[in-house]
Formats: sequence, C-alpha cells, structure tokens
Amino acid sequence: MRTITGTELSEHKSRDSCWLAVHGKVYDVTDFLDAHPGGAGLLLKSSGQDATAAYESIHNPELIEETLSQSSILGDVDISSLTVSLSSETPLQAESEPEPEYPHLSSIINADDFEKVAQKYLSPEGWAYYSSAAEDETSVQDNSRLYRLLKLRPRVLRDVTTVNTATSILGIPSTVPFFICPTGFAKYAHKDAELNLARAAGLEGVHQIIPTSPSMSLEQITGARSNPDQTQYLQVYVNKDRQKCLALIRRAEACGIKALFITVDSPVLGKRERDDRLKAASLGSEAPNTGIAKIGSSTLLNPGLAWSDLAWLRSVTQLPLVLKGVQTVEDAIMAYEHGINGILLSNHGGRSQDTAQAPILALLEIRKYAPQLINNPKLQIFVDGGIRRGTDIIKCLALGANAVGIGRPWLYSMSGGYGAEGVRHLIHILKGEVAGNMALLGATKIEEIVPQMVNSMRAEMEIYGGLKL
Amino acid sequence: MRTITGTELSEHKSRDSCWLAVHGKVYDVTDFLDAHPGGAGLLLKSSGQDATAAYESIHNPELIEETLSQSSILGDVDISSLTVSLSSETPLQAESEPEPEYPHLSSIINADDFEKVAQKYLSPEGWAYYSSAAEDETSVQDNSRLYRLLKLRPRVLRDVTTVNTATSILGIPSTVPFFICPTGFAKYAHKDAELNLARAAGLEGVHQIIPTSPSMSLEQITGARSNPDQTQYLQVYVNKDRQKCLALIRRAEACGIKALFITVDSPVLGKRERDDRLKAASLGSEAPNTGIAKIGSSTLLNPGLAWSDLAWLRSVTQLPLVLKGVQTVEDAIMAYEHGINGILLSNHGGRSQDTAQAPILALLEIRKYAPQLINNPKLQIFVDGGIRRGTDIIKCLALGANAVGIGRPWLYSMSGGYGAEGVRHLIHILKGEVAGNMALLGATKIEEIVPQMVNSMRAEMEIYGGLKL
Amino acid sequence: MRTITGTELSEHKSRDSCWLAVHGKVYDVTDFLDAHPGGAGLLLKSSGQDATAAYESIHNPELIEETLSQSSILGDVDISSLTVSLSSETPLQAESEPEPEYPHLSSIINADDFEKVAQKYLSPEGWAYYSSAAEDETSVQDNSRLYRLLKLRPRVLRDVTTVNTATSILGIPSTVPFFICPTGFAKYAHKDAELNLARAAGLEGVHQIIPTSPSMSLEQITGARSNPDQTQYLQVYVNKDRQKCLALIRRAEACGIKALFITVDSPVLGKRERDDRLKAASLGSEAPNTGIAKIGSSTLLNPGLAWSDLAWLRSVTQLPLVLKGVQTVEDAIMAYEHGINGILLSNHGGRSQDTAQAPILALLEIRKYAPQLINNPKLQIFVDGGIRRGTDIIKCLALGANAVGIGRPWLYSMSGGYGAEGVRHLIHILKGEVAGNMALLGATKIEEIVPQMVNSMRAEMEIYGGLKL
Amino acid sequence: MRTITGTELSEHKSRDSCWLAVHGKVYDVTDFLDAHPGGAGLLLKSSGQDATAAYESIHNPELIEETLSQSSILGDVDISSLTVSLSSETPLQAESEPEPEYPHLSSIINADDFEKVAQKYLSPEGWAYYSSAAEDETSVQDNSRLYRLLKLRPRVLRDVTTVNTATSILGIPSTVPFFICPTGFAKYAHKDAELNLARAAGLEGVHQIIPTSPSMSLEQITGARSNPDQTQYLQVYVNKDRQKCLALIRRAEACGIKALFITVDSPVLGKRERDDRLKAASLGSEAPNTGIAKIGSSTLLNPGLAWSDLAWLRSVTQLPLVLKGVQTVEDAIMAYEHGINGILLSNHGGRSQDTAQAPILALLEIRKYAPQLINNPKLQIFVDGGIRRGTDIIKCLALGANAVGIGRPWLYSMSGGYGAEGVRHLIHILKGEVAGNMALLGATKIEEIVPQMVNSMRAEMEIYGGLKL
Repeated sequence: MRTITGTELSEHKSRDSCWLAVHGKVYDVTDFLDAHPGGAGLLLKSSGQDATAAYESIHNPELIEETLSQSSILGDVDISSLTVSLSSETPLQAESEPEPEYPHLSSIINADDFEKVAQKYLSPEGWAYYSSAAEDETSVQDNSRLYRLLKLRPRVLRDVTTVNTATSILGIPSTVPFFICPTGFAKYAHKDAELNLARAAGLEGVHQIIPTSPSMSLEQITGARSNPDQTQYLQVYVNKDRQKCLALIRRAEACGIKALFITVDSPVLGKRERDDRLKAASLGSEAPNTGIAKIGSSTLLNPGLAWSDLAWLRSVTQLPLVLKGVQTVEDAIMAYEHGINGILLSNHGGRSQDTAQAPILALLEIRKYAPQLINNPKLQIFVDGGIRRGTDIIKCLALGANAVGIGRPWLYSMSGGYGAEGVRHLIHILKGEVAGNMALLGATKIEEIVPQMVNSMRAEMEIYGGLKL
Repeated sequence: MRTITGTELSEHKSRDSCWLAVHGKVYDVTDFLDAHPGGAGLLLKSSGQDATAAYESIHNPELIEETLSQSSILGDVDISSLTVSLSSETPLQAESEPEPEYPHLSSIINADDFEKVAQKYLSPEGWAYYSSAAEDETSVQDNSRLYRLLKLRPRVLRDVTTVNTATSILGIPSTVPFFICPTGFAKYAHKDAELNLARAAGLEGVHQIIPTSPSMSLEQITGARSNPDQTQYLQVYVNKDRQKCLALIRRAEACGIKALFITVDSPVLGKRERDDRLKAASLGSEAPNTGIAKIGSSTLLNPGLAWSDLAWLRSVTQLPLVLKGVQTVEDAIMAYEHGINGILLSNHGGRSQDTAQAPILALLEIRKYAPQLINNPKLQIFVDGGIRRGTDIIKCLALGANAVGIGRPWLYSMSGGYGAEGVRHLIHILKGEVAGNMALLGATKIEEIVPQMVNSMRAEMEIYGGLKL
Repeated sequence: MRTITGTELSEHKSRDSCWLAVHGKVYDVTDFLDAHPGGAGLLLKSSGQDATAAYESIHNPELIEETLSQSSILGDVDISSLTVSLSSETPLQAESEPEPEYPHLSSIINADDFEKVAQKYLSPEGWAYYSSAAEDETSVQDNSRLYRLLKLRPRVLRDVTTVNTATSILGIPSTVPFFICPTGFAKYAHKDAELNLARAAGLEGVHQIIPTSPSMSLEQITGARSNPDQTQYLQVYVNKDRQKCLALIRRAEACGIKALFITVDSPVLGKRERDDRLKAASLGSEAPNTGIAKIGSSTLLNPGLAWSDLAWLRSVTQLPLVLKGVQTVEDAIMAYEHGINGILLSNHGGRSQDTAQAPILALLEIRKYAPQLINNPKLQIFVDGGIRRGTDIIKCLALGANAVGIGRPWLYSMSGGYGAEGVRHLIHILKGEVAGNMALLGATKIEEIVPQMVNSMRAEMEIYGGLKL
Repeated sequence: MRTITGTELSEHKSRDSCWLAVHGKVYDVTDFLDAHPGGAGLLLKSSGQDATAAYESIHNPELIEETLSQSSILGDVDISSLTVSLSSETPLQAESEPEPEYPHLSSIINADDFEKVAQKYLSPEGWAYYSSAAEDETSVQDNSRLYRLLKLRPRVLRDVTTVNTATSILGIPSTVPFFICPTGFAKYAHKDAELNLARAAGLEGVHQIIPTSPSMSLEQITGARSNPDQTQYLQVYVNKDRQKCLALIRRAEACGIKALFITVDSPVLGKRERDDRLKAASLGSEAPNTGIAKIGSSTLLNPGLAWSDLAWLRSVTQLPLVLKGVQTVEDAIMAYEHGINGILLSNHGGRSQDTAQAPILALLEIRKYAPQLINNPKLQIFVDGGIRRGTDIIKCLALGANAVGIGRPWLYSMSGGYGAEGVRHLIHILKGEVAGNMALLGATKIEEIVPQMVNSMRAEMEIYGGLKL
C-alpha cells in the first residue's frame, strides 16, 4: 500500500474524484458519494484532506471499514503533509467555549420540558435531525392526537398503598413497563451518546435497545453496563450480505445482547424534508434529497428484506426476534405465524411514511381482528411513537401492549449537558407518572391495568374496517 | 417542657434539623418535611424562627396539632428572643397597601367574569393553585368541551310565567339545583375564606360542602351560618387512623353537618405541574414535585381507603354518605350496592388524573348501562367539573343528575375584595341563568327538565362501549 | 290635565320618581323603569327633561301610548320652560357631520361584505345590538357550522340554460325562495329603517315580515309598498291582553298583511351579554341585566303564551298563522295538529337560548321522525339562522324547507348609508347565488332541488336520537 | 372593408360604443362587453386604441375570430394614426427589468414549495386567478382535508428492491399514475405557457390535457411535443354550435390528440370572489361580478349541455371520451351507461360550486354503491383536486382510481422563471414520492396498491347515505 501526500490528496475533492483521509488511511469515496446517508455534500466538504475529526464526531470508528469495500483504500497518508478538516459534520459545542447555563434538572418535571431544553440548546442540525419526521409530519402529530382521544376510567376505593411498576419484557424483569428505543446520531445530544443510556438504564433497571449504527462500537456500549444483569437489545437492519449480518449477530451474542429488534418499516429512507433542507442550507449549493435518489442507495437499508429472510435469521440464532415497525393486524398475524417472539407496533415515530396510521390504531386492530394475539405467551406486543406521559404508557398496556418503547425523549434528556443524569431523571419522571396514575386508576400492579380502564370510543371509530380475515 | 431561645431555634433551619415556632410552641418538623403538602421548601423558609404569621395566613389553627405527633413538640419558645417570619406562605395582599380598584360587582354578569377578575387580582400563587389541573390539563378542558357538545331542544308554547328553581338535595330543600363544592386554600382569595361562603349560602338558601382542611376551624365555619336551617356538609378524606376519622365525624355531627362527602378520587395527589412550578420558582433551588415522591407521603390522603372501609363508616354515623369522585358506572353500581346515599360524579376538576373522562360521560354511562340508578330514591347523583352556566346545570339535570356541584367559581367570586357579596352575586347570576333558561326550554320546575330537552348525540358517541355487566 | 313646568319636571329624575316629557306630555315612568327593554338607565338619562328627540330616534311614535297606562300621563309640559335632552338613546350619526365615505355598492359582492361595512360604520350600540347573541354566543356559531358540514352533490349534463328561482310562499308567488325576517331597532342602521325594506322588497318581489315593534308605525311601513301586490307579513308577540292583541290583528288585516308570524321562542328575553355590557358601559354606574330581573317584566314578551292561546287566535282571524321559533320535531307535529299553516324553524339567530340546537337539525329531525310533514300542503316549513349564501338556502330547500328567512344581513345592507339600494343589492346577490348554484347543481327550478343533492352525513350524526313517537 | 383612423377609433371607448384594434383590424365589442370572461372593464381599458399587445399577453391569436361574429369587424385600422395600448391585461414581468432571483430549483423539494415561490413572484392578478376558488373557498380546503383523514396501512417485509410507477391510462402507457390537468391563463406563469408543459411531459413520459382555451394554438402546443409518441388530450367545453365543436374535434384529431376530456362541471361560471375583487380593484370603478350577470353570457360555457349531446359526440369521433367533473355515483353510472370511456371525479378544484363534496367522497360513493365500476375495463376512473403528495396519489389508486389529475401545481412549477425545467422537477418530485411511498407501503407496482392499504374509516363516515339505487 503506497503513501499518499497531502498535496496529492488535495487534488481529489470533486464529484469526479473524491478522496479523504481517516485514521491515517486514504479512501476513495467517489462511488460512495450518493450512498452516504448524510448526503454527498458532507463528504465533499471534508474531501482532499484529513477528515478524521469530522468523521469521529459522528461515527463509530469501525463504520468506515464496514461500509467501504477494501478496494476503496488507496494507501497510507503522509501525515506530515496533511491539511486537516476540523469542521465536523455536526457543529458540536466547542469544548473550549464556556457552557451555557442549563436549567437545573430539578426544574424539569416532565418529558416535554426536556424537549424544550433540547430545542434551545441543540445545534440546529441536531434539532432538525431528531425532531423532524416524514414529509408534512402529520403522522408524528397523529400519534399524539390518538393518546389525547383515549380517556381513562379510574376505579375508586381500591387499596393502592403499594403500587408496583415492575413487569417482565421478553421474559426478563424490568422495573418499568417501558424501554429505550434506538435512535440515530446520539452524539448530537451528548458526546458520550449511547454510553449515557447504558449507564442510566443499568442503574434504573430499564431495558435498552442499542441502535444498529451507534456512535460508538457495540462493545463499548455493552461494556458500559452499570450492572451485570443489565438487559440490552440490538436493533438490526438486516444487511443484504448474509455473512455481514451473521457476523453482527455473533458479535451481539458475544456482547450479551438479549434480543434482536429487526427494523421492518424502513425498506427505503423516509423523506424527512426539514432535516434535508437544513443539510442543504448548510452546504450552499448542494440540493436536498428529493426522495427518489435515495431508494436502494443506502448501505444500511435493505429494500429486499422479506418474510423469507426471517426463516434464515431464526435458524442462525437462539436470540428472541422482535419485528420493529409492524403497522397492521395482518402483519401481526404473519409475525406470529413465522414464530417471531415479539412485535413493536411503530411507524418509526412518523419518520418513514407520512400519513401512516398511528401505532395505537394497529393495537386496536389486533384487539378487534386478532384478539388471540393479546396476552399470548408466544408473542409480545410493544408500541412506540409519541409516548410522553405515564398515562400514554398505561393506555397502551390497558389495550393489550406488554410494554412500550420511547425514543426521542432520551436524546433530549441527555442534551443540555445532562448526560446520564438527565436520562435517569427522565426515567424517574416517567416511572413516577406511571405509578401515580396507576394509583389514581386503582391498579397496584401492571396486570391490574385492564381494558375497562380506557374509554377508547373515539379512537375505535378510526379503526380500519375493511378487513376480512 | 423546656423553654427554647430564639438563638437555639435559629440553629435548626436545615433539612437535617428543622424547627419552627407556632403559637409559642417549638415544633421539630424534620421528619414532616417531605410530607408537607405545600412542599418542604415552604417549611424550610420559615424555619429557625417564629412562623405563626406565615402559618395562620393559610391554615386552620388546629391543623398543626392534628397533623404532627406529640413528640414533635420540643417546648415553649422564649418569645423575647425570637425573630419573626413575616413572610407568609402565600403573599396575601398587604393590609396596609391601598386596595386596587376592583370592577363594580354590577359589571360582572357571568361566572367567567369573576374568573377574569381573579386572574388579574389574585397573587400568582393563588391563581396557580386554583386554576391549575393535573399534568397537561386536558381533563379540565374536556369537562367544558362536553357541555358545549350537548345541545338544548327548547319546547315552545308552554306557560312559563312562574319558574321555580327550587329542589331538594339529599332530602333537604334547596333554592337552587346547585351547591358549593369544597376547595382548598380559600384564604388566597379572601381573608374570611369559608366564612364568606357560609354567610352567602345561608342567605341564599344554597347548600355548602365544607372542605376537609378549611382555612379556619369547622366550628368557626358552621358558626357563621346566617340562618339556623342552613345546610352544610363536610368533605371527608378518610384518615388512615379510624379514631381520628371518628373524632372528626363526631365533631361534624355536633356542628350540625347534614351529610359527609367522602373524597374517593384522590388516593394520591394529582401532578399539578403549573402549581408545582410556581412553588419551585418562589423557592429558588427547591425542585418541584415530580409525582412519585408524594405517593403515600401525605397526611391527608389515604391510598389504602377501600370499599371495606365504607361499611365501618356506615356503621358509625347516621349521616348520609356521598362518594365524591365516582367516575364510572361500575363504581356507581358498587356505591348503590354498598348502601351509599349519593355519588358525586367528578374527576376533581381535572386536578387528580389527567385524561380521566369527563363526569358527564360517567352520567351518560349510567343512563346506558344502569338506568335503574337514575331517579332512584336510594341514590342521589350529582355532577361537578367545568359547570359555569345555567345551561350546563340544566343539561346535567336533564340527563339524570339531582343537582350539580360548583367549585372554583366561588373562590373567584370572593376574590377582588368581594367577599360574601361576590358569592351572593354569583348565586344570583347562576340562579338567574337557570331560571331564564328553564323558561326558554319550557320547564317551570326542576322535575320538568327531561332528557328529551337535551340533544346529546355528539356526546353519546363518546360513551365507553366495552362494558359487559 | 295640568301644565307642568320644566322646573318641576327637572326635580323628578331618580329611581324613586322618574318623569320625562315626550311630544308635549309628561309621563311618570317610575314603575316602568325595570320593564324598559333597553334598561332603566336609558330612561333615567333622559328623565327630568324633554326626551322627545331621544325617544324618536328609536321608537315608533305610538309605542309610548301603547305601552304606558293612561294614569302615567301627568299633564302637558310648559314648553317654554323646558330643557331638552338631545342625547338620543342611540348615537345616530349626526346629520350635520360629513358622512364617511362608504365603499361603493358595486364592490360589495356577498352578504359578509355588508356585515364588514356595518361593523365599521354602525355605532358601537347598533353593532352590539345587531350582532350579539345569547350568553357565550355558541348557537349563533353553531348555526353556521352546520351549513358548512352539509356538502352539495352536483348533478351534471342537465340543460340549465334557464334557471328560475321563483317559488310560492304560503300560496303567494315570490321571486325567490327567501324572505325578510323581522329584526328590532332598524333605525340603528338607517333613519328610514323598515321603509327601506318595504320599498326594496316590493321592487324585487320579495316577501317581508314586519317586526312587532318597528321603528315606525305599521301603517307607515305598509304604506311604503312599492307595488300593490307586495306581500307583507307581521311578526306578533301575542300580548297578555287579548283585546290589545285583537286590535293589532285588526290593524294588520286593515293594512293588507298576508300572514301572522307568532314568535314562540322568546317567552323571556335571552341573556345577550355583549349588548348588555355595552349599554351598561355607556351609562356608567348602571349595571347590566343579569338575566333574572327581566323574566316576566317586559311588556312585549308573554311568558304565559301557550298552545291553548292558538285556538283563540285561529278563531279570530282568517290570516295564515306561522309559528316562529319552533325548534323540535315534537313541536312541529303539535303545530300541525293545531292547524297552524306554517312553522319557522329558528333559534332566534342564537339570541334566545344559548346552546339551543341549530334549526337545520330540527329540519333533519322532522325528516327522520315526521317525514309526513315534509312537502305537506297543510304545513309550510321555513328555516332561519346563519343563512348567508345561496348554497345555504339551497341546502334548506333540498332537505325539505319551503323557503328560508334571513334577518341581520338586511340591517347590514341598509347601513353605511345604502338604504333601500343596499337592500336591493343584497337581494340581487343572494338571488344570483341561488340561481348560479342551482345551475351548477343541475336544477332549473326550485322543485328540482331534491334531498339527494345534499350529502348531510356529518350533520345526520348530530340529530337527536332519543325520540319515541 | 373600410380603413379606420386612430382618431375615429379613439372616439369609441365607452359602454355605448366600444371599439378596439387587434392585429390591424378594428372590432366593435360593444355587445360582447358583458360576455367577456375577464369582465367588461378590461375591454374598456384597451378600447379606442390598438389592443394587440394586451390581447396577445393572454390569448391565443385565433380566439378573437372564433369568439366574435363576422359583423363585429368594422374594417382595417390606419396603423400610422394609432395610439397603442401597452397595458396588458395582466402585468407580466417587463422583459427589460432585471429578473428577480428565484430560489434554485434544487432547493424545491415538494409541490408546496413551488406554490410558495409562485405566491411570491406571480403578479397579484396571476396569483388570484390561479389560487382562488368559488365563494368561501371551502371546497378547495375540503379536498385537502379528506386526504389528511385517509391513513396508510403499510405492509412490511416485502421485497421492494424494484419499484415501478408505470401504468397505463386509457390504454396508453404512462411512466406515472398522474397526468397534467388543463388550467387557464398559463401565460400568467410563464411566457411559453403550455409549451413548457408539452416539452416537459414528453421528456418525462407524462400525459397532458391541453386546455380548451390555451394561451397559444392547439397546433403550436401539439407541435411542441418532445417525443413522437407523446400523449396529449384535449379539454373540450362543448360549444353550443355543433359545427364549431365538430371543427375543433377534427383539428384535435389532426393534431394527434388521444382523447377528449369533456368538462361537465361548469354549465355556468363559479363565483370566484377573490379573483373578481382583484379585477375590480385594478379597474377602479368597475364592479366585480356578482354571479348572476354571467349566467349564460359566456361564449365558452354551454349551460344547455346534456346527456343527449353525448350521443352525438360519440357518433362523430372515435376518440375516447372522458367526462371531467363527475361528482356523484349516480352520474358515474350514467356515464358508464352512455358508453363513456372515463370519468374524472372533480369539483373543478373548488372553483365551480362551493361546498360541493370532495371528489374522493365521490370515489368512495362508487365503491359503496357501484363497485362494479371499479377496475371495470370499459370505464376508467380518475380523480383530481387538492392532490399535492405522492401519498395522495397512492390513496386514490388504492381506493379505485386508475390515475389522478394535477392542475395548479404545474402552473406554479413553471413560474419563477423555471419554465419547462420546473415542470420536469415537479414530475421528478411527485414520481419520487410515489415510488418511495410505494416501497414503504410494500407495493412494487401500481397493481399492488390495494384498498387494504388505506384506512378510510374517517372519510367513510362522510359518504352520502341517502341513495337507493
């Protein structure tokens, strides 16, 4: 492998020939430009120079090797001759600047408070990435609307001196009926990213799903467990290359991962316009993604993933498999018939397909058309999307969910410099809301949260009516 | 009992050792800090000194003795050596300042007018305490929304020359089909607090429920009756200690209380964030309640209260018992089966559980699933929450309520310096609205207000549909 | 009858003794103060002096004699010694001031345009009186909401070269399927008040209902007919004194009135708070009406009016009788059974009972529960309230109305100095909208407007469902 | 034919005698004043002078000859003596002024972006003409509301590696399931008007309906095809004069037009008040159209068009006939029974009859009452109105449409100086959204978009319920 000087490197900074150096190696990313999930512009901006700092501010160190083919590596860089790209892809707070004064954690008393702090202190790019959703962002609003339509029916004069929020998820005890859903680019929120989640989750007895593309390696995150019995799952975007997929599963098993959450709602990337616009703006002439360009171009997404792939997955691992992104009763039934251990009803927080129905409607569909799947020992049912209150959680449980997933709020809770303590604080808030509202509802343990505690008439008028099973 | 100097007292003003003096006695409230419904901060603020003024601005003189154990009393204070805490818990209008000019009562023509005055003239703390509701405050809005969905169906060409709003409540005549519901901390609104309500109610022939923790003693309030036949009830939070509870009932009986309203919708405190935030803000570093901390900690609330306790209550008093806070038809039936004399359908004005269904929906549930309870001589049905207009009252009566309760508006009506005259004015307004709208509806007496006078189709679409009785 | 000097008169200007002079006579109005529909304040303001100008700016000259008893007349005033009250009850535009520049009529292209002009140019009192409605003004909004919920189903490929909006109302030809509803205090809008309506209606072949208390005498208004066949009806508030009522009917017959519209939705006055507040504000210390005071006090309203009175009315006149203000199918059936010739479904433009259901719902009730009344030769059905567009009119006709009434817009159309020309312009606009929309709908004459042309599903979900006939 | 001097011409500029010169000929347009779709004012403004420039800025050169009778031509103008009207009817951007800086096309990522640009850069007249709708513009909003009520039900784990948006429309291949609907006055948007559409459509394989009154001749537009197989249709307002209509059809056939879209929803002109007001404002004293004046006066519209005319049309041409503007299932059935080849469910973008039901409701009506018409080889069903997103398109297809029409967005896409490139960009955007959302929904080709992919419960509550077929 030859040595490449900074001068030579600096000549390759165009769409026709785009090189950059990371960790001392020079890569030719010309063919990868359009496949880069962050857009070609970000690569071009760091091309012709040492892009290590920019790369590290976002990515797991191994990602570049996993993503690019061996032939992309052109050689070693002559470090003495380099110019360095200090501009990271995301304008993280410069470490040297004085930190702004964040509100004291004790003044934050609900999940929305964290969101307001995050909106104020996150970089515009970080806020846009986290908060945006597909197209007109109607699904993300609809997810919340449905929870407001559901009304509670509190039962009185039950002894609720002791309220217990503990339950079990996939057969493993959890102190609470909610878990941490995977989210991308956690470094926008805090430099320790997923480590914060791992530490807080362990201390609080909460289960965590590690994203398929975390900001640091799987080994680092699983190594950050704060207690040995801590439950961590792994989100998996099944790779087109089965060998790569298998390798990942073996790593997960080695790291003590307890289940795999297979993302099935993103065969292609959702059109997140707010996020796209901001990226375009920051790059000047570079145009935002108009949707079609990205179909099939991503290295992460696998539009060819099909039910038949699940049989193979099932054959290669003993880990429980959960489908993340089921949105209809038909697919819930298919999951059950394929021997899947759980389904996470989700429209990806409104980030995949705009106007996709709210996941709570999918749960109500199951109640109506496939009640045999509710409280079925062979299939756990989870829900995510728009859950911000203890009452939201309780409503899902009452209607048949075994637990719920929460995503964006964890990112917000670690921003503002709060780190793991913010995450713990949010766990306390949500757990407190669940417990307090269970007491008000007349339930002392999770099993006592029954369907009769929810008046779902307004939502039921919206359940799909055309099914003939 | 020893004498304690102001200097010694002043050394105990921390979370580790917190003393304060009230009415010449020194109390150690260290263990009570977290149980104080107003938060530990308020106690700490007045600690190490004479807190009598601050205490009296809010509390009934006996409360401290009732609440704290005998062992909390450390001794008598050396009055000569005291520093005095003049800062009351609630910034009441300083008596010496010139009073602001309030709008003339005659310019106030509906209940909302009083609320606007109150919002302007109450202290921020008072306004927050009165107006706030649980979490996102959706139930409080929903209570009102339902009344707007109900439409009246006026009958014409009936002789309505004489319209009579009189009815009987729990067998006792009332000039109007509404009564005064209990509310806390009435001193925020006016220094005479519950005395205003007692005087006005007596003069107008309106029934009054005295709160369980009034600002002055039960004897003072019952002593303020302006007419000997005046009907007063007592709200009861059944104490964990049955002897204390029994003592209260005996006092109530001695005071001529006519019925007990047992609060059943608050086994734990609702999470009233707006109120919590303001308290926190006024205390600087002290954090607002995040919900879980308070469960089971209050001396007032009894999370263990259960149906079995009612049998005991029933056995110890001849007073009619009404359950305040029933929210489902199931519990209405249970109340009936337990020989209870009445139920007040209520979600505590949205202050307990957010997204609890509106009480008018509970009434419609009863119409649908347990019509035998409507107009049943053994069980009276009351409704409260969001009632602000004569038409709201009429709608409840038409759908089966025997009378309705009104809460916050009385507080607003006595604020602005109006006192008892404001309360009377509000009674006149509401009575006038009831009478005028009865005439417009073609009803000359309460019994002529029938279900056919309300088009409840839009609300009926929202009645819980999952019951199998 | 004695002569009273200005000095003596000026000594009677209090609630205890209140005199005023009109047209040279001195009246003692002390006992009438609380019965004055405009409030006692207006009388007090003009008391102790010559109130003729103030009186005439609002009232028909005969009204004072009709209203006050003979014993109220104290004597003749000594004109030379008088002070004169020039302040009219309503600040009409001073004739001497230059008129503001009103928008050219040709720039006004729909009914709402007239309303905007009126809001700008009317006195605050006039605007408040016309535009206000009862209490929270929800019925007035609801009336409009329902029209927006109704959707048209246009049929295509029908020859609509000739579209004819003519129909017959109570057997009398009308060029249009709408008529002029009666409204009070037309002088706020224009000094010629009802004369404008009479002139315009005659020229355009539109039927007019003259209000029971017009601004000028019935004879003046019927004398202003611009064509001999012109159809005028009279609104009647049936007086408690049958002889007075009979006298009015005889006058009406003598004036060529073609039918009587008996107001049945106002046994007492609605609580129109916006109007009341403005009156109070203009009077300083005088308090607004709180509702109850007015019940039974008005000389106009007759809370004792009942179905039995209709038999008497039917016996004393051959004129067709129409009940104005029917609001339920039950009363529609009763009207039919009492041999009434027509019903005007109306909630008095939301001015009587707030939250009364919209009249279009009453029409849909009739379609559902008493379809035999639709297109029944013995009973005509009219609708008013919130009708502002040709499509609103067409929707009523399609659902079974024979014609519709329009009220406030006529007042707005004559304000801004437009007078009769404004009224004609509004007739042209509405007629044009009816014709144009008939063509678009595939109907060439009124009879071709059929129920299938309206999709009323959303409104039908709101029809009262509790009737057992 | 005599020669007329500028001086003589200049004497005829009033309503009584109104002449103008176009292309060297003098026309007497006195009798045509009220029939001019743009209003008499525009003609009067250009009268008494050479109006060629003003005429050409809007109209197709042949229109004047087609519209006016031979007897209107008074003679040739003496060009040397002319004054020239440079004021065009529409203030197009003066060619000499520097163009404003439009946003780069690449920054436009959805159809609404184009609308925002157009609102900013179009002349007020152009914007008003394009964006306005009938009366209160409620139908145009309702069209959009319905799409938001429809929710998608994505199926997962289907191989969507290859997604194909191609389909066939009226038996002719199209790269996308949408086509270009005809719109008037395209020159407001861009000087090349329909040529842009023809060029872009050809390059992208999209079908185009040419408006009946384009800005340039049919031959010019069909001559601008960028590919020989390009599919162009013609919108036809069937002329009262069958010979004129026949001549147009023969021209269309000669130009290679593939089908005729017969407009049936506009027997008379809708009352587009916003547009009318702006025209009036720009003309000073001239009054806006109040609706009735225009009925039957237009040379374009034919209020006499009826089903019987279709038999004649069917007999004179082999071209497929599509009815544009069907709005009910009844007319869909009639179209089928008359041997029509297709129907375009449309309320003319809300421009004809306000409060006409949304076209998607008509489609749902067909599903309910005449399912045999769905996927029927003899009748294609199209939908237009409010479609702005790929998901809107997909929803129509799922519910039974063969393709959808899009109108205003094309005008917006060519404004801002974008011309044909803007149109192509919009095609790319929409095609991208369709493809991306098909993938997310689990459909790889148009036929795989099935009804079960749409949860239409909320819309189904609004389907007309009164039909007895």
